[in-house]
Amino acid sequence: MIRVAINGYGTVGKRVADAVAAQPDMEIVGVSKTKPSFEAYIAKQRGFPLYVADPAKRAAFEKLGLPVAGSVPEMLARADVVVDATPGGVGKANKPLYEKAKVKAIFQGGEDHEVAGFSFCSDCNYQLAMGRQFVRVVSCNTTGLCRIINTLDREYGIAKVRAVMVRRASDPGEVKKGPVDAVVLDPVTVPSHHGPDVQTVLAHIPISTMAMIVPTTFMHMHAIQVELKKDGKKERIFELIEKHPRMGLVKGGLGIKSTAELKEYALDLGRPRGDLWESCIFADSVAVQGKDVSFFQAIHQEADIVVENVDAIRAMMGSVKDPEESIRMTNEALHFVAI
Amino acid sequence: MIRVAINGYGTVGKRVADAVAAQPDMEIVGVSKTKPSFEAYIAKQRGFPLYVADPAKRAAFEKLGLPVAGSVPEMLARADVVVDATPGGVGKANKPLYEKAKVKAIFQGGEDHEVAGFSFCSDCNYQLAMGRQFVRVVSCNTTGLCRIINTLDREYGIAKVRAVMVRRASDPGEVKKGPVDAVVLDPVTVPSHHGPDVQTVLAHIPISTMAMIVPTTFMHMHAIQVELKKDGKKERIFELIEKHPRMGLVKGGLGIKSTAELKEYALDLGRPRGDLWESCIFADSVAVQGKDVSFFQAIHQEADIVVENVDAIRAMMGSVKDPEESIRMTNEALHFVAI
Amino acid sequence: MIRVAINGYGTVGKRVADAVAAQPDMEIVGVSKTKPSFEAYIAKQRGFPLYVADPAKRAAFEKLGLPVAGSVPEMLARADVVVDATPGGVGKANKPLYEKAKVKAIFQGGEDHEVAGFSFCSDCNYQLAMGRQFVRVVSCNTTGLCRIINTLDREYGIAKVRAVMVRRASDPGEVKKGPVDAVVLDPVTVPSHHGPDVQTVLAHIPISTMAMIVPTTFMHMHAIQVELKKDGKKERIFELIEKHPRMGLVKGGLGIKSTAELKEYALDLGRPRGDLWESCIFADSVAVQGKDVSFFQAIHQEADIVVENVDAIRAMMGSVKDPEESIRMTNEALHFVAI
Amino acid sequence: MIRVAINGYGTVGKRVADAVAAQPDMEIVGVSKTKPSFEAYIAKQRGFPLYVADPAKRAAFEKLGLPVAGSVPEMLARADVVVDATPGGVGKANKPLYEKAKVKAIFQGGEDHEVAGFSFCSDCNYQLAMGRQFVRVVSCNTTGLCRIINTLDREYGIAKVRAVMVRRASDPGEVKKGPVDAVVLDPVTVPSHHGPDVQTVLAHIPISTMAMIVPTTFMHMHAIQVELKKDGKKERIFELIEKHPRMGLVKGGLGIKSTAELKEYALDLGRPRGDLWESCIFADSVAVQGKDVSFFQAIHQEADIVVENVDAIRAMMGSVKDPEESIRMTNEALHFVAI
Repeated sequence: MIRVAINGYGTVGKRVADAVAAQPDMEIVGVSKTKPSFEAYIAKQRGFPLYVADPAKRAAFEKLGLPVAGSVPEMLARADVVVDATPGGVGKANKPLYEKAKVKAIFQGGEDHEVAGFSFCSDCNYQLAMGRQFVRVVSCNTTGLCRIINTLDREYGIAKVRAVMVRRASDPGEVKKGPVDAVVLDPVTVPSHHGPDVQTVLAHIPISTMAMIVPTTFMHMHAIQVELKKDGKKERIFELIEKHPRMGLVKGGLGIKSTAELKEYALDLGRPRGDLWESCIFADSVAVQGKDVSFFQAIHQEADIVVENVDAIRAMMGSVKDPEESIRMTNEALHFVAI
Repeated sequence: MIRVAINGYGTVGKRVADAVAAQPDMEIVGVSKTKPSFEAYIAKQRGFPLYVADPAKRAAFEKLGLPVAGSVPEMLARADVVVDATPGGVGKANKPLYEKAKVKAIFQGGEDHEVAGFSFCSDCNYQLAMGRQFVRVVSCNTTGLCRIINTLDREYGIAKVRAVMVRRASDPGEVKKGPVDAVVLDPVTVPSHHGPDVQTVLAHIPISTMAMIVPTTFMHMHAIQVELKKDGKKERIFELIEKHPRMGLVKGGLGIKSTAELKEYALDLGRPRGDLWESCIFADSVAVQGKDVSFFQAIHQEADIVVENVDAIRAMMGSVKDPEESIRMTNEALHFVAI
Repeated sequence: MIRVAINGYGTVGKRVADAVAAQPDMEIVGVSKTKPSFEAYIAKQRGFPLYVADPAKRAAFEKLGLPVAGSVPEMLARADVVVDATPGGVGKANKPLYEKAKVKAIFQGGEDHEVAGFSFCSDCNYQLAMGRQFVRVVSCNTTGLCRIINTLDREYGIAKVRAVMVRRASDPGEVKKGPVDAVVLDPVTVPSHHGPDVQTVLAHIPISTMAMIVPTTFMHMHAIQVELKKDGKKERIFELIEKHPRMGLVKGGLGIKSTAELKEYALDLGRPRGDLWESCIFADSVAVQGKDVSFFQAIHQEADIVVENVDAIRAMMGSVKDPEESIRMTNEALHFVAI
Repeated sequence: MIRVAINGYGTVGKRVADAVAAQPDMEIVGVSKTKPSFEAYIAKQRGFPLYVADPAKRAAFEKLGLPVAGSVPEMLARADVVVDATPGGVGKANKPLYEKAKVKAIFQGGEDHEVAGFSFCSDCNYQLAMGRQFVRVVSCNTTGLCRIINTLDREYGIAKVRAVMVRRASDPGEVKKGPVDAVVLDPVTVPSHHGPDVQTVLAHIPISTMAMIVPTTFMHMHAIQVELKKDGKKERIFELIEKHPRMGLVKGGLGIKSTAELKEYALDLGRPRGDLWESCIFADSVAVQGKDVSFFQAIHQEADIVVENVDAIRAMMGSVKDPEESIRMTNEALHFVAI
């Protein structure tokens, strides 16, 4: 059993914890919180030992009936791998802790590539992660871009990717961030950082991205236009998406034309938290004209990187050599069948 | 086994169907749809026979791989009770169908009281529903008001209720309704219909309500100010809420101050679809000054009436005489433990 | 003086009426409403004779102190040109009225090209509108696309335009339309109708567009990627935009990175209703790499076509032969100086 | 001429500056900014001398073509009165500057009552402000409450006010603050601070308030329920509102039932920035039953305190003794005729 600690039990951390706990070859040795909140109660409900980032706050937890198992260094001492799911930039500050504890660590896409020197996406470069001490799982948007780009690139070769990312403003459980009624260019400069971030995984892909923020809470929407090196064929592209373990085709007959309907469908299906781990490509949007392929894909910002973190754990531990085998194990444990 | 049909498998219908299917003494004999959509796929996934409102659309369903079991009258012929979960106003139009089929029918709060001549709330008037052919389960807002008002009234007597309802604009899966950036007075006139609607269940309560719509998708927020007939006591009110099977106290230590955080908590708890069947009263908001009690309660518009429908079925069938017994059975089957 | 009637005094109609009334060579002979509303009071405040679409509603207006000048046919009898600013699709139904009244008519972009057989954009094809009886001013999005595409095409030639339109859900004064919290693909199919619509004005431009709706109320945001036939130069492109009478460069130093800040700036400048008649291109977003040019432009959906309608009137009347002269007159009368 | 400086040329400051500049007995001697933005350009456009809070940033302004007149102390040296329109809490920190400069200062409602020791509302306590060095104009919500409460109190006496405030999440030009899709209890505790804040002006009024935040950008909506000491009469209440110089009755015939339509109406009327300086009470909502009066009023958060600041200047300077005279002057200079 691979012993996994979660540093930062928030939006991403709590999902990775549940996914890890569901795996046959992994267990959660602890999760950490900086301050008491409903998520600390969830950790207790799940039976995850709760560690505190700041020992001075121990009493605050205990007063609320939340037993504290110890400090973060104590948690790290029990773990083979720590998943750092702290807010962007904090991971870098935590790195010395992980080095001192001699524990393998996974960082999230909110950190720079340099924090780990290696950026990961399961179906692109699993094998290159084997045995590494530090790995960065790329962001939800970059993960979503890498999956489809790598798939099309292997089949057709890619001459150029142009993508416009329309990003959600805040996660559903956040209430402080806006905007309320605006489209915010973020960044206003072109290209956005997403293109270069894809290149930390797929260095050879020519890609230009533009990004903005809109007042929604779930899913980013990508409008993607790809120039292939050879003529594409719609049926073949559908086939590639459907057999990919982390992409799903939103079929026209479902009557789903929005992120809201997609979320509703995921909740109806009984997905935990309504999570969509797969990239959701709208079948009706796929247009192929010679070498030009266009389509919309929706990316659930809280979920798609969860399964990538699980695979990264196996790759770093070297316990499963074959990426397809790890991906299959991860998906099966979550009863993840593409939509 | 009570045989239940669901006429209108949408936001409410699909939830009632799942709740009914989970009961030990009930089964779903069919659900109906007017046109194919992702919800029709969910019915298939759940194994609920799918009936069509308009036989002419049968082919449209079958083309999408959705087998059709028959027409709505055919569905009614197999049922003891039908839950009409069609859009507001359609229930009234459906009533002759139910009369002809000699089937008991439950209408929702979008219909007028007159459609059934009896308006239902489990913990207020369960026994009066015994044996009736037609019952109307009051709306989500009215249900939320009735639960707490009835509870306070039994303990203290109520001199006057003043409530302001801040309503969500659309359900999470709807994309056509707004507003996007406005507070809409609905109705602009005072009092709103909610007060009289409470009186269809609790005729003797003096109540004045005001209502508006805001651009959110989940939960209505009620700001309630009650004048009791005797001095209230906060601890006793907490006790009353906590022992009530359909109300929950949102405790201060959870750090939950919004509808969004409450939904997140429900999803984290593993509630199906994140449903909050209970009225959620914010503990920190409860203020008692002599006979004056004020508090905020949040009502999940898609969920709170689901459990009421299940109880109404038992009352109408006369299969369980004791309301507390039915409420307990309903809650247990859903693993519903108050938050 | 050209006598102008406005059929449909709503979001667009009231703006065109004010713009027409400000011109030295035009006057408003009447505006029409279907039912009384605050906009009818505004017509009265402005001194525009008020005509009613449905004579049966005359009393409803008069009861509110709104004098009615007559019926729509009576209004048409007093006009040289009618601007049809009714909701999409109604214009087509109104056409026989205009034919019968032998009045020139301008339709809006909500109608199909075929309604007039000629689609208009001031700086693209003013002269081709000379003397016509029927002209369609293209939609706000198409107008915004035509202005910059035509400008770049004249200078460099255009090999291909790829544009993603992120559209506002409802106008600021509308409260019924949503979504509240979703990105809606509209249409889900690619390409959207915007590309072909640009070709009704600029037939030779290869263009592919994708479009979605987001929960905001003002301005559409376009992410545009153009392949020129020759290498572009950023300074020259800035120059072209700045000297264009209907485009404005949102300069970096202003600190404006969103539609909300742009609207605030327009209101601060004292623009009537905060209207932005110009396409607003974000200077910091303009990226030029060889033949590839990318940028964001924001389009005020209520305003950009207002000035086009005024020019179309002059072209159809043949009173001003030179497009630049008409554009100059229109802009001057509105004290329209680019941002 | 009273020489007025504006410290903090943002949402409130820029409006107060325009209102002051429009008065016959006042002039703007300078406005201050902490950093360059589009609002600094507006100051330049208006011809207001621009002072900088941080002299180190002088070059940053000048690089953008924005001439800097000097530092804030230099601005204060030229002024009789400074209007502190800095963000909440900063005013208190600025007070020593004003004391040192021996300048009269007006603080906004974001500061505590103690900063000035006197809280102001034009039609409640103008005369008590005469000659004071420091005055705090109460917040937009408190101003809106004071106007109507004081009016009803003078006529009928007030036994109890219960008010629920549904607050906008961010100003229209802000893009960082949320929530996007939530009702946030702010504060979750009852009563909110608004009741006590009303009592800083009207100490004898028994009032209990509850407040929440919703994802809109303009206007707070108040649901107010008042118990009078004598029976009320609707016609008389309408009369009181209509003759009040700072309240307006939104008449039913206008078809306005939301904040969005109200804003649209204000923009159509030609109000600068669409500002609604008056409390907007919805005529159709006013319900009177014996001593109980209920109604909705909308308060434009950016505007209603603007006119109060202008009156406060005259009161503090002692230049106009009669509050009605000052209010009349202020309104007239803005061409402020109630809606």
